[in-house]
Amino acid sequence: MTPELRKDPVTGRWVIIAGERGQRPNPFRHYAPATEAGGDCPFCPGHEGMTPPEVLVFRDDPGDGGSAPSWIVRVVPNRYPALRIEGTPDKRAEGLYDMMRGIGAHEVVIESPEHDGDPARYSPGQMAGVIRAYRDRTTDLLRDTRFRYVLVFKNHGAAAGATLTHPHSQIIALPVVPARLEAELAGAIRYFEYRGRCVYCDILSQEVSDGRRLVTQNAEFIALAPFASRFPFEVLVLPRRHDAFFWTLAKHQVEALAEILQDVLRRYRLALRDPPYNYVIHTAPPGHPSPEVYHWQVEVMPKLTDVAGFEWGSGFFINPTPPEEAARALRDLERFMDVTDAQLLRGPGAPA
Amino acid sequence: MTPELRKDPVTGRWVIIAGERGQRPNPFRHYAPATEAGGDCPFCPGHEGMTPPEVLVFRDDPGDGGSAPSWIVRVVPNRYPALRIEGTPDKRAEGLYDMMRGIGAHEVVIESPEHDGDPARYSPGQMAGVIRAYRDRTTDLLRDTRFRYVLVFKNHGAAAGATLTHPHSQIIALPVVPARLEAELAGAIRYFEYRGRCVYCDILSQEVSDGRRLVTQNAEFIALAPFASRFPFEVLVLPRRHDAFFWTLAKHQVEALAEILQDVLRRYRLALRDPPYNYVIHTAPPGHPSPEVYHWQVEVMPKLTDVAGFEWGSGFFINPTPPEEAARALRDLERFMDVTDAQLLRGPGAPA
Repeated sequence: MTPELRKDPVTGRWVIIAGERGQRPNPFRHYAPATEAGGDCPFCPGHEGMTPPEVLVFRDDPGDGGSAPSWIVRVVPNRYPALRIEGTPDKRAEGLYDMMRGIGAHEVVIESPEHDGDPARYSPGQMAGVIRAYRDRTTDLLRDTRFRYVLVFKNHGAAAGATLTHPHSQIIALPVVPARLEAELAGAIRYFEYRGRCVYCDILSQEVSDGRRLVTQNAEFIALAPFASRFPFEVLVLPRRHDAFFWTLAKHQVEALAEILQDVLRRYRLALRDPPYNYVIHTAPPGHPSPEVYHWQVEVMPKLTDVAGFEWGSGFFINPTPPEEAARALRDLERFMDVTDAQLLRGPGAPA
Repeated sequence: MTPELRKDPVTGRWVIIAGERGQRPNPFRHYAPATEAGGDCPFCPGHEGMTPPEVLVFRDDPGDGGSAPSWIVRVVPNRYPALRIEGTPDKRAEGLYDMMRGIGAHEVVIESPEHDGDPARYSPGQMAGVIRAYRDRTTDLLRDTRFRYVLVFKNHGAAAGATLTHPHSQIIALPVVPARLEAELAGAIRYFEYRGRCVYCDILSQEVSDGRRLVTQNAEFIALAPFASRFPFEVLVLPRRHDAFFWTLAKHQVEALAEILQDVLRRYRLALRDPPYNYVIHTAPPGHPSPEVYHWQVEVMPKLTDVAGFEWGSGFFINPTPPEEAARALRDLERFMDVTDAQLLRGPGAPA
């Protein structure tokens, strides 16, 4: 079957039913069966022909005066897209159910030419290139008026859903707004109607003055452990300056976001020994009529424990690590931030 | 720290921050560190002293005229509760945040005396005893007016969050309604206001006449693959007769629920080779003023793939298995329902 978007008739949440394209259902296969044999990584330099043609590429400045510039970040369409780019949504009903064709874009950001690269150890310029690719692709995809949201996310490590080890993130353009964002927008509107202020601006202000949940900060962003964290060591990266839309980032903000995100990921790497993790960019949808109510942000979640299904089934979370303790543990790493990997594997408490 | 309930200031979702009771945060330890060494299973007969005293027990009828009746189902308080039973909620604010003391009950239903028991293979009476325990404990816990919801769920298999292999499920009484239930109640109210009918009654009627997503049924219940399933092989068990409240189950309905739930779990076992899974009972909260809008149900989810964090981070799901294909695969097992485990391991397609 071609992909479909289906709406839950009770909660209104949209789901992509991606289908197995005519094959028998095989529940044990991950959605994106992109895993290639060892030496055949489709994301490595020299294998560019294994991916669809790139939609964006950043290259080295060949400042050394000689060799041809090589790419440092590439963005390509996903070979196994969850959504198809062609066509119109064709919304329709089937009895009480609502559905539409699964149109959208699904792209892969190849973050580095290095197969074993790790965002925690990229050069600042490399990470800034990744953030710039997120911004520029989002801007470009939103020119297509069929798309109501662009979801930027990264799965790091197999347990967090990465099917290829070569570092990459994903961009999905959707004709609907994801449920979590709808809930955040609705909550932010409620707060604004009551208080007349952006809830995230208030959170930022309270967290900076309180300090117990702060992880790290720079001139443009703060990183904090949310008051009602669902997961141990969850981190929220908030821009200091109110803006509803992620893609308005200026150049110095791209660099500042790259810096704070790497700072958080380095702290994870050190405190939690290179854990699997995910991050997701939350932004207001394009054309949102009340940009004063929402504040874009990056949600970062290490995957440390198997989340039990009752949490899926109930929306109710039990978090064993108070965010104040998580923040303190991540803050206290300052003096270890330059340790080597060999030291890292011995643990922060071990003699160097 | 003592457990706290904290409310997300944007979405309104409550989270239990359970704390590590004075120890260093250890993100790699699961919440309920109840795993005991091999021969020391606290749930096995003869080890009753290893659990807190039981709050409910069902015993064999010693109809054989001799030996003392032994227990078939026991319910005991969780030794490592996420919530504390004593005290009042003491709601309070901390700046813009809302919180309360983590009061509630956390109980374990020891489903069988057999350490290697499997719900898919319990006797019908055993499974009915488990459902009866859910019903009776829920009724008893709701006598405590501090509790606004009772969450009944099962984690089967380590990947689904079970920390002990001896078959058990859990009951958590809460002073708040879980976010997912709030969303379902709100959606069901919207539908009722517009259509004047229970959305789940309409789903039931459409699914029975359509048939493509039906998995199995009996006189009291149907089991179906939801139209907008988030996960491969997700199943919803709906009572045919409208009722908002789970705990009103009559005896014949207890038996019918036990039967259909076992039927679904046997189909999982056969089609998916004994997968990890979870189920969660959804019910209207006690005293809900509009019982005509909501319809209690059981949500059953095999854990077949690692859910990527972007799904946590966005509320947006990609499901590779259309529910129609999942339902057909589960329906088509009729002739295999009595196969042995040896046959099962060779797979349904193999010669007997």
